[in-house]
Amino acid sequence: MRIAILGFGSVGRGIAQIIAEKNLGLTITAIADSKSGCMDSTGIDPLEIIKRKEDTGLCGEKGITAEYIIQNAEYDALVEVTPTNAETAEPSLGYIRLALSEGRHVVTSNKGPIALNYNELKELAEENGICLKFEATVCGAIPIIQTLQYGLAGNRVKKLYGIFNGTCNYILTRMADEKLTYKEALLEARELGYAEADPTYDVEGIDAAIKLVILANTIFGINKRLEDVEITGINSLTSQALELAEEDELTIRLIGEINNEKGTLKVSPRVIPKDHTLVVHDTLNAVTIDTDLAGEITLIGKGAGSIETASAIISDLLFISNCHDRGP
Amino acid sequence: MRIAILGFGSVGRGIAQIIAEKNLGLTITAIADSKSGCMDSTGIDPLEIIKRKEDTGLCGEKGITAEYIIQNAEYDALVEVTPTNAETAEPSLGYIRLALSEGRHVVTSNKGPIALNYNELKELAEENGICLKFEATVCGAIPIIQTLQYGLAGNRVKKLYGIFNGTCNYILTRMADEKLTYKEALLEARELGYAEADPTYDVEGIDAAIKLVILANTIFGINKRLEDVEITGINSLTSQALELAEEDELTIRLIGEINNEKGTLKVSPRVIPKDHTLVVHDTLNAVTIDTDLAGEITLIGKGAGSIETASAIISDLLFISNCHDRGP
Repeated sequence: MRIAILGFGSVGRGIAQIIAEKNLGLTITAIADSKSGCMDSTGIDPLEIIKRKEDTGLCGEKGITAEYIIQNAEYDALVEVTPTNAETAEPSLGYIRLALSEGRHVVTSNKGPIALNYNELKELAEENGICLKFEATVCGAIPIIQTLQYGLAGNRVKKLYGIFNGTCNYILTRMADEKLTYKEALLEARELGYAEADPTYDVEGIDAAIKLVILANTIFGINKRLEDVEITGINSLTSQALELAEEDELTIRLIGEINNEKGTLKVSPRVIPKDHTLVVHDTLNAVTIDTDLAGEITLIGKGAGSIETASAIISDLLFISNCHDRGP
Repeated sequence: MRIAILGFGSVGRGIAQIIAEKNLGLTITAIADSKSGCMDSTGIDPLEIIKRKEDTGLCGEKGITAEYIIQNAEYDALVEVTPTNAETAEPSLGYIRLALSEGRHVVTSNKGPIALNYNELKELAEENGICLKFEATVCGAIPIIQTLQYGLAGNRVKKLYGIFNGTCNYILTRMADEKLTYKEALLEARELGYAEADPTYDVEGIDAAIKLVILANTIFGINKRLEDVEITGINSLTSQALELAEEDELTIRLIGEINNEKGTLKVSPRVIPKDHTLVVHDTLNAVTIDTDLAGEITLIGKGAGSIETASAIISDLLFISNCHDRGP
């Protein structure tokens, strides 16, 4: 399968590196970053372009744009991993629309277009008989979308709840284990690169809420927007609350929950037993899927990171390459 | 997709019930139990046959055999859930061979044929351009095969380890929590239906070892037999060993492990921290997959039970129905 990669930051380069190292049946025929692009229908040497990018800051020639590549390169699937504005979903949204209209499969790691415009994009993919895949948008390397769509196919999901934000989980772990204040733990998370300079999206629960919206719309078909999620973050949580919980063998975690029977979405700090399956440590994510046939299935793993995101993208590409037929 | 079901015990009836209740695009056209069978190319009413089986002990007419159905019914996929001898893999093995030779997809819950004859059966499936699926053979409702084949596609699995036997996990949980002796806990497990009258297969670690052999041969391609697994069961574990562990915030679990780098398979009781992800309670199963890209991914859920087994069978059927093309 021939691949075009849009966005050549750490995730895009990670994907190129994996394709170079592993014999996966994937050939890169085009790459674009924000300033340049390169195309070769016979296949590009990924390691050469990675080196060029590191040496010059560009992956190809100036003037070759993402749009040009989408419309002119020879490829079967677009990997869309551009830096994208989460509120407008651009430029990602435009790229995905264009590639789907051209009849190409799309795999993206960008939450915005999936959270905001899934129904439109899904229709466009169906009209063109191709796939739109987005495993990397929720819980990083954990194959949560795949599990819901295929592994638990035939099950009705009653509820789905868990830890969708590694930054908050790190902060809460450190507050509990080391008796740090919220501010001290946040500072530590920033120093370790787990929190952004502006941590609002994470600590106010917005990032977790967006992931719930993606699952609600793509898997449960219950058409929700960010405004529909009842959100409480961890930013006003006191050390005292955690200490009180710990005295009774309890702890606090930021839990996102979709109640599929009531059609409600909620993100809030919850007090749970310390030996609960969802009490994972540091930056891990964990999700429990409560179903009618399989009972409760829990998935735990790394929810962020470039190589983990690349892993999810690669699994989506291989799924399309091996299984695309009548399936979604 | 048209389905023929062989074996109409609790799993077979569970599958029929689910197909009756849910609109999954699956039609049952044939059913056989050990003494009788029924066929209707326009579709059988599953609830009628379930009632007939409960009333008369038979699902259809005497004289209609499983072999006859495999060769004469109109169906796309065979669901093979017969009671089968684990050592010879019969009659399951013969049924699967016959159906694959007839060019029909096969979904089975029987460990024997997959542990003993996977390579032969896989070749037969490939020759005929059809699927052989077996999610239900390992960890019940947990989609472990699906996750390894698709969710983590592109990853190299370095190690895979976890709790593959719910009976042993129940016994160890009760010994630790209630200070029961091994014999007391086993008796309790039997009374609750978690252990067989002859618990040898479970407590000596053989059941867990067979599951490792299945994963080793089907996913890792490292051609192993039961004799290749280093096995220690829990049957000679003392209460004292557990008490000593508990004093240091540790506990004991029966862990099965595939080391894919060394090519070794091992089942043994291990001392692990009480807050370790794999310390699940009662009859739960839990598996950690240690990979090169996604890091460690853990799956936890119910590893046994008729409805859980039916759930895995249904997900396999839907996968074939939606995704069969070039994929396995």
